[in-house]
Amino acid sequence: MTLTLTPLQGFPLVKPGDSLAGLVLQALLVNHISLQDGDVLVLAQKIVSKSEGRLVHLSHVTPSQRAKDLADASEKDARFIELVLQESSEVLRVRPGTIIVEHRNGFVCANAGIDHSNVCGDDGQSEDWVLLLPEDGNLSAGRIRKELEQTTNTHLGVLVIDSHGRAWRNGTVGISIGMSGMPGLVDLRGRPDLFGFHLQVTQVGAADELAAAASLVMGQASEGLPVVHVRGFPYPLREGDLSELIRPRDMDMFR
Amino acid sequence: MTLTLTPLQGFPLVKPGDSLAGLVLQALLVNHISLQDGDVLVLAQKIVSKSEGRLVHLSHVTPSQRAKDLADASEKDARFIELVLQESSEVLRVRPGTIIVEHRNGFVCANAGIDHSNVCGDDGQSEDWVLLLPEDGNLSAGRIRKELEQTTNTHLGVLVIDSHGRAWRNGTVGISIGMSGMPGLVDLRGRPDLFGFHLQVTQVGAADELAAAASLVMGQASEGLPVVHVRGFPYPLREGDLSELIRPRDMDMFR
Repeated sequence: MTLTLTPLQGFPLVKPGDSLAGLVLQALLVNHISLQDGDVLVLAQKIVSKSEGRLVHLSHVTPSQRAKDLADASEKDARFIELVLQESSEVLRVRPGTIIVEHRNGFVCANAGIDHSNVCGDDGQSEDWVLLLPEDGNLSAGRIRKELEQTTNTHLGVLVIDSHGRAWRNGTVGISIGMSGMPGLVDLRGRPDLFGFHLQVTQVGAADELAAAASLVMGQASEGLPVVHVRGFPYPLREGDLSELIRPRDMDMFR
Repeated sequence: MTLTLTPLQGFPLVKPGDSLAGLVLQALLVNHISLQDGDVLVLAQKIVSKSEGRLVHLSHVTPSQRAKDLADASEKDARFIELVLQESSEVLRVRPGTIIVEHRNGFVCANAGIDHSNVCGDDGQSEDWVLLLPEDGNLSAGRIRKELEQTTNTHLGVLVIDSHGRAWRNGTVGISIGMSGMPGLVDLRGRPDLFGFHLQVTQVGAADELAAAASLVMGQASEGLPVVHVRGFPYPLREGDLSELIRPRDMDMFR
């Protein structure tokens, strides 16, 4: 079966309080797409965060001493680092220009996913506005999914993605930060292969593979393609969440 | 523009010496797909390696003392570890059940990408056969691309992928191990976003995002879907190779 990923054209700029489900439904209409059972909607973190009012103006942030120290080490704004610390449960690495942390929600990433590059607040100015990740990506996905399903009478998956750097490899890739109605991992352990042997390592990070695929067609979400419609996701939809994709600390060799 | 990924149905089992380009062209015909300029063919490492005769029988391998020591630490077959060492330039981590290395070609992965789970040799037996990665994934991709382009008079990209585990996250994802005719990284630095600001972190691992997307529809390559036809790759094709995606050691915080 063919997998198709269609970025929705003409998605509007999102403001705090906007109903993302409503905006997605409008955009689907404009793009002549009717939702079917098994479809997945992939949303860029940025629009989810904006709709949830996760914009913070740095003038409202008072850095702690620890934030000031880490700001020196990372050569970043101490108020920004203060927010990174508030959004994190552990600091893994600090270098000039870089701070790698474990986010509250369990995943490892730079800057706790806080976006300072192209964020615009109510005043239309960008310099001192930053955008935090959603409070809980799974809950965000669940709310949007529920509204989409009720309106269209379908069974869907919803995936919220961000774009992260990686250990060992250059370039960002799309990655899951929350989901609803779809598997994070697909466990193929024990399924016989063509030769009749049982596969060994066969836990597939299916949601992350879809996140990367959707990110590819979003390009930069800032260019206006923050929602991707997916048809043909090759695994059955089920209840699932981000925790499936988080490696337990005691199984993690790279901290 | 919609991105479509179509796994080619009915791809035959590949034997050493087979022309992969020929098999791909046949499979495209059977699947009623005519190649167009800008299409990308994604091939699972397994069939590339098999066509190149990278099967090794462990009875032909004599482990060194270092291999024996690492076999004890990793609880793996010393002959298997000997091959891992021959295919690697650095050992990063050894734990029971796991050995993480830098492959000769520069990327970090478990077992140097050597597959022991579902490999079949000429004798139809699996137990002691293993499959090494291609000697050079870029060259493999280039050879296949050249033959495909000459036969069809098109400009194409060819990507060879494997399925790797990751730091910090559960589940394997598809990842590039060689390419030809397409970018590894897409550099968006300096491109203004919707607000007119210049983006900061905007090197996108486009080939790895496509690798993950294609891996999603392959499922397990062993199940018979090792080739994926891609239409709508959203960046211009150009000469590119795997080295773009390899983070230099001095920029790598996780070794």
